[in-house]
Amino acid sequence: MRCDSPIKLRVFSLNCWGIRYRSLHCTERYDMIADLLAREGHDIVLLQEVWSEKDFLLLKKRLACCHPYSHYFKSGVIGSGLAVLSKHSIRDSLLFRYSLNGYPYMAHHGDWFGGKAVGLVVMNIQGRTAHVYVTHLHAEYCREQDTYLPHRVVQAWELQQFVRHTSCGADLVILGGDLNMHPQDLGTRLLRTYTGLRDCFMETDSFDGCEEGFTLIADNPFTDNKELLPFEKGIRIDYILFKGSDRVSVKCEFLTTTKGSVPGKAFPYSDHEALSAVLLVQPGGAAVKSCGEDDDMVGLAELVNTVTEARTEVKVGLHCAQRMLHTVTRTGALGLVLLLLELAIAAVPYLAPAAGQPFPQASFYLLGALCFVTLLGSLLLFVFHSMQVKALQGAEDQMRLAASGLQEELRGRPLCRDGRPLGEAAGPDALSEDREPDSDDSISRVNHSARD
Amino acid sequence: MRCDSPIKLRVFSLNCWGIRYRSLHCTERYDMIADLLAREGHDIVLLQEVWSEKDFLLLKKRLACCHPYSHYFKSGVIGSGLAVLSKHSIRDSLLFRYSLNGYPYMAHHGDWFGGKAVGLVVMNIQGRTAHVYVTHLHAEYCREQDTYLPHRVVQAWELQQFVRHTSCGADLVILGGDLNMHPQDLGTRLLRTYTGLRDCFMETDSFDGCEEGFTLIADNPFTDNKELLPFEKGIRIDYILFKGSDRVSVKCEFLTTTKGSVPGKAFPYSDHEALSAVLLVQPGGAAVKSCGEDDDMVGLAELVNTVTEARTEVKVGLHCAQRMLHTVTRTGALGLVLLLLELAIAAVPYLAPAAGQPFPQASFYLLGALCFVTLLGSLLLFVFHSMQVKALQGAEDQMRLAASGLQEELRGRPLCRDGRPLGEAAGPDALSEDREPDSDDSISRVNHSARD
Repeated sequence: MRCDSPIKLRVFSLNCWGIRYRSLHCTERYDMIADLLAREGHDIVLLQEVWSEKDFLLLKKRLACCHPYSHYFKSGVIGSGLAVLSKHSIRDSLLFRYSLNGYPYMAHHGDWFGGKAVGLVVMNIQGRTAHVYVTHLHAEYCREQDTYLPHRVVQAWELQQFVRHTSCGADLVILGGDLNMHPQDLGTRLLRTYTGLRDCFMETDSFDGCEEGFTLIADNPFTDNKELLPFEKGIRIDYILFKGSDRVSVKCEFLTTTKGSVPGKAFPYSDHEALSAVLLVQPGGAAVKSCGEDDDMVGLAELVNTVTEARTEVKVGLHCAQRMLHTVTRTGALGLVLLLLELAIAAVPYLAPAAGQPFPQASFYLLGALCFVTLLGSLLLFVFHSMQVKALQGAEDQMRLAASGLQEELRGRPLCRDGRPLGEAAGPDALSEDREPDSDDSISRVNHSARD
Repeated sequence: MRCDSPIKLRVFSLNCWGIRYRSLHCTERYDMIADLLAREGHDIVLLQEVWSEKDFLLLKKRLACCHPYSHYFKSGVIGSGLAVLSKHSIRDSLLFRYSLNGYPYMAHHGDWFGGKAVGLVVMNIQGRTAHVYVTHLHAEYCREQDTYLPHRVVQAWELQQFVRHTSCGADLVILGGDLNMHPQDLGTRLLRTYTGLRDCFMETDSFDGCEEGFTLIADNPFTDNKELLPFEKGIRIDYILFKGSDRVSVKCEFLTTTKGSVPGKAFPYSDHEALSAVLLVQPGGAAVKSCGEDDDMVGLAELVNTVTEARTEVKVGLHCAQRMLHTVTRTGALGLVLLLLELAIAAVPYLAPAAGQPFPQASFYLLGALCFVTLLGSLLLFVFHSMQVKALQGAEDQMRLAASGLQEELRGRPLCRDGRPLGEAAGPDALSEDREPDSDDSISRVNHSARD
């Protein structure tokens, strides 16, 4: 039964930093989080980094009265860490695993083992269909030399694609999570511009929380302030985004964040700050803009530029990945040559018994072991980096296709009122099909055809 | 500009068996396929097993005039093998990689390296939005002892989920590919029942092709007839499926398959037969069934049963995967104990110099290498099988959620005209929430709550 009166939805999002035996005060913090959620009774709770299913089950048990519906997304080696608790019934779910997510040999960063993904649950909120997404993107460990940037850009690309393609039938769309990207970062712009999702912090009528909506702050005792530099006070990397549809309009009335400390407690809920938004959902969609409106066109041209920028970043990543693949192949070949040399040496006593064993036995075995390890390691890395190259190439192809589709759309639109070609609103580059973000000839050649 | 007159769409699907240097007459067969496609000029061409991108680029070049739009999906180590060629413009694309796809150590089967997936392209066909899917599921190597069955069931589950969640805004939906499942297999039923996709072979007005629509036939010289047993004449595992929307109705007017040999040629196009369908797309959607109609309810009850059956299969797979994980863990522990023992032996000459080296040096190094290989192998297998367990658990959770949602829907519907409870149409099990496909206590406990 659909309710046609306005609905107030309270949405909560928190990266729980729940690595058992490694995150400080993990059990106590989960208790505090459960207390907070039971007290506040949000409609929808979106959690990230709930790495242990046991912790999720404890939370679920504690919150069974106020949040009777829940879903925990499983992925990767240790899980996706994503969980949803809800007052409203969850009818369906889908998990999309990102094609790229760091490197297994960077075990100290651990992202690869987490199987980062975006989870979708379909909820029935008083007769309205809400598509609620929760996600967690690859961490940024060093902003100046961010080797994971292409991976995060591909994740942001796949996230926006997934949201666009799966949110079509929804009355309202909510996305919450730790994007590990600043508001003006490429991936955030890509996500917002392409999906039309609106940022609670930017749109809220009223805000109470950390300065500039920071969710990773210097005042949080779990934060290593050196890692925050050059952003002394903090950064905003956790988001609640939303949009309505042609049947429902949504606005953010109030947004609040926790502020590092919790009154009466020795430590905060997590190393991230929690977000809590009040959304007002009203019947009747936002007015659909008529084709040819200037701001609509500027948005489209901006989107073309953003996709082109993302493509450049992916190409840089692809170049590095291909170089790594070549290095691994060469190392493997070297290992093979050494192994063959070893076998030749081992054969000497049989072929020319008089010569005796020409090599000290211990060195012989050690060298053999080294060859074997080199060969095996190279083989594994070859498989991994081949997959990485394929995923980056695939993302780049999709971006090229999308950009050419958008450019065609832009060309098909009428001119602005002042008669300028529309692309000029965002600079001539936006319209130029021949523009190439880099000088890679082979890629340029393929790109000249907008039809693939 | 939307065209409101009926549209005839010719759709082609073929598994090309395109393994360079391994598939017989690969280059010649691609030439024949290109000739066929250029001659026939289908609207949409869906290809599988185009493993080499070079072959795709050659096909694309050859068919640039009649099929100006194309997309090649990249995934896994060697690619997904999926390609689309089209007369109609492709606006957007998305790739969903299946979470399970065989085992990397079963290298002779090779499926794992292929990165099996479902690719979606969004097409504009005379103003109508068509969502066109191409996919290839894990092969069935032994029907009697099919160790890949749980993987294929999870793939079918993810395929139907992906189609359901991404096809919402489409005027028409077309899915083509090699499902590696017979028409009455669990995965095929799951896909058809849940998505509402209709099978061209079952629905066509007119058919010309192999007996019973077989696409892997004994008469094909590339087929190993022993592998077909107990199905002497052939099996049907390639499909073109379709559905309309509330704006467009679709019917299949004609379906044809190749018949093993090609006139004037020494060998056929592939080891699979090609499918070619003529779809008639007409404005005006199929009449929407009113809630409570008996056949609608029977369909829903059948779907609940199918999901339950799939869940049972996934649980069996989960049980096996967990057993393998335990075996791997135990083997790893054994390797570690042996390595520690080795180190203790190595320490003897230092701790008690008089004792001398108690172990022949060659055996010592060999044992060391064995321990190392065992440990490394166990570690890699542990990582792989942990991911497998997580993916199976995730799929089972999603099935449980979906089944409980469907059961709720079934309960909310009115009774049949004869007053029987609706679930009885498909047996009482369909409605029973407490029914457990197996006796796993921990799973039973979780399942009793339909709310998770």
